[in-house]
Amino acid sequence: MHELLWSKREKQIARAAFEKALEREAAALVALVRVKALEITELDDIWRLEELLREKRRELERRYDYRYSVLLYVFADLILAGWLNPDELAGLADDKRARIEALVELTRERM
Amino acid sequence: MHELLWSKREKQIARAAFEKALEREAAALVALVRVKALEITELDDIWRLEELLREKRRELERRYDYRYSVLLYVFADLILAGWLNPDELAGLADDKRARIEALVELTRERM
Repeated sequence: MHELLWSKREKQIARAAFEKALEREAAALVALVRVKALEITELDDIWRLEELLREKRRELERRYDYRYSVLLYVFADLILAGWLNPDELAGLADDKRARIEALVELTRERM
Repeated sequence: MHELLWSKREKQIARAAFEKALEREAAALVALVRVKALEITELDDIWRLEELLREKRRELERRYDYRYSVLLYVFADLILAGWLNPDELAGLADDKRARIEALVELTRERM
């Protein structure tokens, strides 16, 4: 997908959608960690929390990759994970939105 | 210190002191993590907590080494860190307690 062109307006829309998804996932993670922390009563709980945080950090590092060469895959992944609504990509060229939708459908079929 | 002999009674005292120190440090860490978790409001706070937990885990793994060959050093370290009171080693042979005390003093001088 390296050949796709992104207009200035599309880049703004893409960036805003990306940031919005990250903001949502971050807020959900903050809430999760606060709840998990209150359940901590012993050392093993702490090490389980550490493991959870490590997994989440790796997951977010993998997921939030803002390179135009992979951005359609990133958006498909964010839609599948529930952090992005396809409507929030309104304004991107139709071929881009169609490709994202196709990626979403393809992955859903494989689940 | 490999040559030191530990009587059955001394082993019981040593084990109890070791477990008591670990119990105290664990309780303090649980309290710390619960407080830190409540202060979390954004992703960076979460990654700082992850880093703190990783450091603490490594610190505890290094500190709580129950091998008789290193146990006097371990007790000196626990006394210096405030997790063990020298009185809780009452019942160990005088030479062991004297060595622990010497290790504590030696380290304090270097601090």
